[in-house]
Amino acid sequence: MTSRALRDLSERDALRLLAGVPLGRIVFTRHALPAVRPVNHIVADGRIVIRSSSGTMLSDEVASPGAVVAFEADDLDTDLRLGWSVIVTGLAGVVEDPDQAARYKARLRPWLVGDMDQVIAIRPEIVTGFELVRATG
Amino acid sequence: MTSRALRDLSERDALRLLAGVPLGRIVFTRHALPAVRPVNHIVADGRIVIRSSSGTMLSDEVASPGAVVAFEADDLDTDLRLGWSVIVTGLAGVVEDPDQAARYKARLRPWLVGDMDQVIAIRPEIVTGFELVRATG
Repeated sequence: MTSRALRDLSERDALRLLAGVPLGRIVFTRHALPAVRPVNHIVADGRIVIRSSSGTMLSDEVASPGAVVAFEADDLDTDLRLGWSVIVTGLAGVVEDPDQAARYKARLRPWLVGDMDQVIAIRPEIVTGFELVRATG
Repeated sequence: MTSRALRDLSERDALRLLAGVPLGRIVFTRHALPAVRPVNHIVADGRIVIRSSSGTMLSDEVASPGAVVAFEADDLDTDLRLGWSVIVTGLAGVVEDPDQAARYKARLRPWLVGDMDQVIAIRPEIVTGFELVRATG
């Protein structure tokens, strides 16, 4: 087995890694119960930006004012057991500015069919992450 | 771009796919806020089984009686935009039976150092999932 070391990521490195992958999972609360959806995302202007369709459970919960969400992304090699995971907690909200929303939409091609009319941004409040790297020596 | 179709997975297919990957994300509520951790898992006796270390935030929340959690796993090809995602919601609890816990532990090698003394099982109540497949014709 590879000798491995666990390291905490700095906030800067965590957000850099998160920005480098196209897919994460948004975690929210629905009727006080935990809920999760895989979504594609970008990091722009210091925020995590996703698209959603208004009227879906995700939009109902995440686009409401003051919604706190978590966002997780990882790149973990399950054979070598190396890689990283980043978890961001923050306030989510609809991007209301039409120019900004259009700019984000142009960079966020939806995976799924559907309107995907809403652009939602998460402002990171707490950023944590770890990486599992090969241990030296 | 590949022509793709979105299909809902049956509960049976969803759990079969979930059982076929080593890694998922457990989603829980911490002080009414959403939280998430990547974990390796097995599916055994109809339940999703993970290990945790008592005293961690995960164990504090997930091992408490009546804790409702979600568990997500996916295998999504971000280039082709094909693959699947499964989300299970259910009640979590510590596996108290020592023989059963030992049997699960033998199949669940922890990724991280630490005691990983606790074995936690999630009994699926709601199982949903989708797959994105190549469209024919």
